Amino acid sequence: MVNFAKMMDNVKASEIRELLALTQRPEVTSFAGGLPAPELFPVQDFKKACDAVLDEQGTVALQYGTTDGWAPLRKQIAERMLAKNSIHADPKDILLTAGSQQGLDYAGRVFLDPGDVVIMESPSYLGAINAFKLSQPRFVEIPTDENGMIMSELEKVLATTKNVKLIYVIPDFQNPSGRTWPLERRKEFMEIITKYEIPVVEDNPYGDLRYKGEFLPALKSMDTKNLVIYLGTFSKILAPGTRIAWMCANPEYINKFNLLAQAAVLQTSTFGAMAVSKYLEMFDIDAHVEKIRAVYGHRAGVMVQAMKDYFPEGVTFTDPDGGLFTWAVLPDYIDTKVMASQCLAKNVAYVPGAGFFPNGGNNHCMRLNYSCAGDEQIVNGIRIIGDIIKANLK
Amino acid sequence: MVNFAKMMDNVKASEIRELLALTQRPEVTSFAGGLPAPELFPVQDFKKACDAVLDEQGTVALQYGTTDGWAPLRKQIAERMLAKNSIHADPKDILLTAGSQQGLDYAGRVFLDPGDVVIMESPSYLGAINAFKLSQPRFVEIPTDENGMIMSELEKVLATTKNVKLIYVIPDFQNPSGRTWPLERRKEFMEIITKYEIPVVEDNPYGDLRYKGEFLPALKSMDTKNLVIYLGTFSKILAPGTRIAWMCANPEYINKFNLLAQAAVLQTSTFGAMAVSKYLEMFDIDAHVEKIRAVYGHRAGVMVQAMKDYFPEGVTFTDPDGGLFTWAVLPDYIDTKVMASQCLAKNVAYVPGAGFFPNGGNNHCMRLNYSCAGDEQIVNGIRIIGDIIKANLK
Repeated sequence: MVNFAKMMDNVKASEIRELLALTQRPEVTSFAGGLPAPELFPVQDFKKACDAVLDEQGTVALQYGTTDGWAPLRKQIAERMLAKNSIHADPKDILLTAGSQQGLDYAGRVFLDPGDVVIMESPSYLGAINAFKLSQPRFVEIPTDENGMIMSELEKVLATTKNVKLIYVIPDFQNPSGRTWPLERRKEFMEIITKYEIPVVEDNPYGDLRYKGEFLPALKSMDTKNLVIYLGTFSKILAPGTRIAWMCANPEYINKFNLLAQAAVLQTSTFGAMAVSKYLEMFDIDAHVEKIRAVYGHRAGVMVQAMKDYFPEGVTFTDPDGGLFTWAVLPDYIDTKVMASQCLAKNVAYVPGAGFFPNGGNNHCMRLNYSCAGDEQIVNGIRIIGDIIKANLK
Repeated sequence: MVNFAKMMDNVKASEIRELLALTQRPEVTSFAGGLPAPELFPVQDFKKACDAVLDEQGTVALQYGTTDGWAPLRKQIAERMLAKNSIHADPKDILLTAGSQQGLDYAGRVFLDPGDVVIMESPSYLGAINAFKLSQPRFVEIPTDENGMIMSELEKVLATTKNVKLIYVIPDFQNPSGRTWPLERRKEFMEIITKYEIPVVEDNPYGDLRYKGEFLPALKSMDTKNLVIYLGTFSKILAPGTRIAWMCANPEYINKFNLLAQAAVLQTSTFGAMAVSKYLEMFDIDAHVEKIRAVYGHRAGVMVQAMKDYFPEGVTFTDPDGGLFTWAVLPDYIDTKVMASQCLAKNVAYVPGAGFFPNGGNNHCMRLNYSCAGDEQIVNGIRIIGDIIKANLK
């Protein structure tokens, strides 16, 4: 009998993965995923970038590289964070990672001992919950409203909770809720964490994908005490298949992440990083992001209108300003996991909300993704879900 | 004051990394690295493979994929392991990883709780020591001779040591020693671990790079109790820059690794895996490996001859049958770390051996890499090291 490490007791197969497997049938309209729309990938431009890298620096691209990652790409990232997020960062303060998921794993491992507290929005990103679980922490959830985390609740928790080692937040177009923190709340948050001096992971995979309203500064741009670990990625604005993302943090933190990365994985792909760097050099990524925003913004609008048309009274949902998701809250006696099977029988899928709450409960919510479906699919799918909700009403 | 996780106390900057930084000066002949020779990378063929992937399945290559990794590549790997290593494996028993280093991290995390024992050859691969340190184990070293691990010593340790959770070995052309286990010793090892039922990591990055003698079957091919976790990689036979490697193990272990990978990193690069798969489909990798073997085999021969010519009596060294390294043992009063500075002053570099012993000591050894240097460089460099050894003799 082989014994596995105790930590593995926390690691279970994700119900969502099992659900997603069922949604692969071609007849299913799936709002369950969170994938970028593949028809928008700049395949031919990316190919030109790969060709240029291999023609110009092929032996460098195929060789081992440094743990921090391809230096010209880190410089481009620093410039882009300044232009888009008002973040002043030195390329030395950036570490490339294989997707932001790896950044979450690193953050958990560097900051959390078993039993330590990690604070998250309620609900929050399922993948972050799973990554942090590997460090066996205690999760404390902060209630949210339509403007994200409620800061008075955060302050209450920090004033009364020991061993808070990390706070994880997604201020822009949150996964799963689709909500965005207004400027005032960002300022309040930074005042609070500056007072308590707790490290913060600001996960911003969707920040560029704003469809409505003004871009807001990143928490990291207001980070006078250098407590914020900013996670950015090319997965949603270019393509996820190359697994190129980054962490940006103060030199002390980045040094720890770098040492961990050396031991855990040596480095991200040299070729992948150089291809992304060359793409940024050869093409206008902002023009490309503009195309994505137009398509996703349209699809978000179609879904929200369909929800207004077909969801019954008593159901609330987010009208997102950006990102990939909307979130619906049903009467609390409806179990969205049970309802998911009813919907799947009618060939429509969504993700039940419970998995996004680290401590469980909240069985009456659902996450809906609109980035990968056409207008007609969206309207028909939402109509079917609406009918099933109505059939479940008491 | 921010507190980091206790585990991070174990994670220190590698002295070797600092040494390698000093060896970057162009006038330095470095035997310190362990890089494949970049002039042998099949850059133009790899470019054709990338182009074909992006032309034929671009939107798939740039999208998210499954955690286990691109299925056609896992099938190709299974076929190749059967042909080259006599390993019968189902593609379902394979998980792609971002380099074998990630496989080491996964093995440590899945099997080791703090204080558990991991057994290694003495000396062993520095990167494995560093990866396992993240799980805070106790390291027990098994003495070795010119034929690798001494099996009677292993049996003694297993008979008397509690909480042995993992055994890590490199039977082919070991890093750092360059030694290979003969068939008889492989059989003995498998008998012992079959008796004690301890999971084994068989790390085989160099197995294809044999210059002399007969290929020997992998431990995994004799694994009647399914205890061996086999690590293979494309880093040394194709290129390390894409970070595509694999783990092969029984379904129970692979399921654990897969769950961990889901939480820690989601997946390896879809595009990277598809490019490697397409390369294997379009080109003859065995013909390519043949070229590498010819070049490295020649360089190994030049280095060993130079050591015979220039190293004084009292120094022993490995005449490797394959791989990238030879290993020299000096009189035990010579500190190879001190001597490394003397050599660097003469523009020659190697890696002091102490770092390859998880519990320290053994300051009189050195690892020498021959894969990246020309004949004249090798002869001159070894002559200089030989002169410095002589100057240090009592």
